[in-house]
Amino acid sequence: MKEQEVKRTDVNTLGEFGLIEHITKDFNNIHPSTNKGIGDDAAVLDASGRKMVVSTDMFVEGIHFDLVYSPLKHIGYKAVIVNLSDIYAMNAIPEQITFSMAFSSKYSVEAIQEIYEGVRTACDLYKVDLIGGDTTSSTKGMSISVTAIGYAKEEEIVGRSGAQVGDVICVTGDLGAAYLGLQILEREKQLYINHPGIQPDLAKAQYLIERQLKPEARKDAIDYFRKNEIIPTSMIDISDGLTSELFHICKSSGVGAFIEEGKVPIHDDSQMMALQFNMDPITSALNGGEDYELLFTINEKDLEKVRYMPDIYMIGDIVPKDDGIKLHTTGGNRHDLKAQGWNHFQT
Amino acid sequence: MKEQEVKRTDVNTLGEFGLIEHITKDFNNIHPSTNKGIGDDAAVLDASGRKMVVSTDMFVEGIHFDLVYSPLKHIGYKAVIVNLSDIYAMNAIPEQITFSMAFSSKYSVEAIQEIYEGVRTACDLYKVDLIGGDTTSSTKGMSISVTAIGYAKEEEIVGRSGAQVGDVICVTGDLGAAYLGLQILEREKQLYINHPGIQPDLAKAQYLIERQLKPEARKDAIDYFRKNEIIPTSMIDISDGLTSELFHICKSSGVGAFIEEGKVPIHDDSQMMALQFNMDPITSALNGGEDYELLFTINEKDLEKVRYMPDIYMIGDIVPKDDGIKLHTTGGNRHDLKAQGWNHFQT
Repeated sequence: MKEQEVKRTDVNTLGEFGLIEHITKDFNNIHPSTNKGIGDDAAVLDASGRKMVVSTDMFVEGIHFDLVYSPLKHIGYKAVIVNLSDIYAMNAIPEQITFSMAFSSKYSVEAIQEIYEGVRTACDLYKVDLIGGDTTSSTKGMSISVTAIGYAKEEEIVGRSGAQVGDVICVTGDLGAAYLGLQILEREKQLYINHPGIQPDLAKAQYLIERQLKPEARKDAIDYFRKNEIIPTSMIDISDGLTSELFHICKSSGVGAFIEEGKVPIHDDSQMMALQFNMDPITSALNGGEDYELLFTINEKDLEKVRYMPDIYMIGDIVPKDDGIKLHTTGGNRHDLKAQGWNHFQT
Repeated sequence: MKEQEVKRTDVNTLGEFGLIEHITKDFNNIHPSTNKGIGDDAAVLDASGRKMVVSTDMFVEGIHFDLVYSPLKHIGYKAVIVNLSDIYAMNAIPEQITFSMAFSSKYSVEAIQEIYEGVRTACDLYKVDLIGGDTTSSTKGMSISVTAIGYAKEEEIVGRSGAQVGDVICVTGDLGAAYLGLQILEREKQLYINHPGIQPDLAKAQYLIERQLKPEARKDAIDYFRKNEIIPTSMIDISDGLTSELFHICKSSGVGAFIEEGKVPIHDDSQMMALQFNMDPITSALNGGEDYELLFTINEKDLEKVRYMPDIYMIGDIVPKDDGIKLHTTGGNRHDLKAQGWNHFQT
């Protein structure tokens, strides 16, 4: 980490309260709902008649991020984005986050500050207030925990259980890129370990790597829904892979689904890279995680409004439960989808 | 850990979603404000015109708890209590928590379940709903992150900044016990490491050890405030030691403080144990952390109402800032208090 060579301030020189003051001084609250932010036992929020939506996630060094190839700033950024994505997936707008970290003494004040830089960038871009957190030490490695709080009117909130037979299944963006980005980074890490002299040429893989290291949440889609008075019948963000998320919706809604392989959006770079890894591109799109795109279902009556939504793909239909959850391949076959997902415990 | 000898189910046999379903199936929501709990991208809450109060804390194996002497159930219990304590310290009532964990493969499903047993016991006793969380793996050790959400009317919320000259400084319970409990546990751990055959006799230290391993939050004090229409002018929970918390209040309120040594409540067992450790009992009471008692200031007009509050001690007065933050010793001396606190980074 280059910034540590330039300046390395030991965390002990500031102490816990000094460190918190130091890293949070550039955070400013923008939401009227943030009555009181950092600096007391707890933050005070005002929901003003709206419903609140709360989501939380944990990120662990060596499991969710690897310091060999993840810039510190991106770690902070991604940890926030992943939680915001959960709030958007409820069709709500995030306004506050808490950000907690445990880290060992190998991290300097500058390193911690770099992570908070990423947090601040995400807060600025997505317009959320940092209202609290905890900063503590660990014996080894780093853990991050983020909680995001969003708001919506009761009738705007969209869960997983509202999909109905006849609804159209949509996704934003393209799928599989983040997974392929991770495969590239892991491959380069192994190459580097075995041949430390080699400089990798990652220019061609830039899009895929960025999708892995610095994903974005689909705020734009929720803004579009609001502006055009669209309320999806069900929605979920794609963190564990399209198939896994589709299973969640189908299970919660008591329905089946039919997906057209040819309609699943896959980026050109993903197509090429999947082939390089001897993988069918559709496999990475169906089972690769961490794209943080939105999977949602739309009632037929809203179809016209959704059709002109940018970066949106209609990939299939909700069918009766007994029809199962199936993929119609470009080759003309139909087969059952299997939820493989992202099992963090199978390493 | 005995329960692991009896039955050890590998976490892989359930997978992430199976594990979450397994450990959360016995949690039931009781609050109308919990519109939607576990099972979607995020929980949905209703503040119904009240203000919301949000607090978060992180607990790391080897820093905040030691599996050598902390029963798993108590770890889950304490992690919840510490956060509820922050909500009470705002004079709010907690109604929801999220509970997240990262743990390595050395933990079985039974071990995780044991921790959640403690979470459930705390939820039952303090009447809070578990509304979400994250369960993931780590390469080594265990981290826990808890976020608590409470509610209060705007005029009920008490921060750190409202203490005024002439206010009386009060604390609940007794101080220093949790710190001394930790010293005993650490001493016994060293003894055990050096002489594995010796069975420690901890009967006499039971109160102190329980204060360390299974602290309680002062819900009763907040209930009493509500019932008797008392609103403290400032309040904080004692997690880092009386002196450290008093400094927070004085700094935020722009005042000084004067504490009577003889009025600081110290349990008989703490008195005796401090002397065994060659420590002045007042030192453990002033600087020992993790008691989770409440430190608050009361306007003189409310003094009569507070006087009959059970388990309450008036230990001093708020004075002008220029008078400093001082201790009046039983020996008749006055000296400046120094905030030592609980610095997790100085190990």
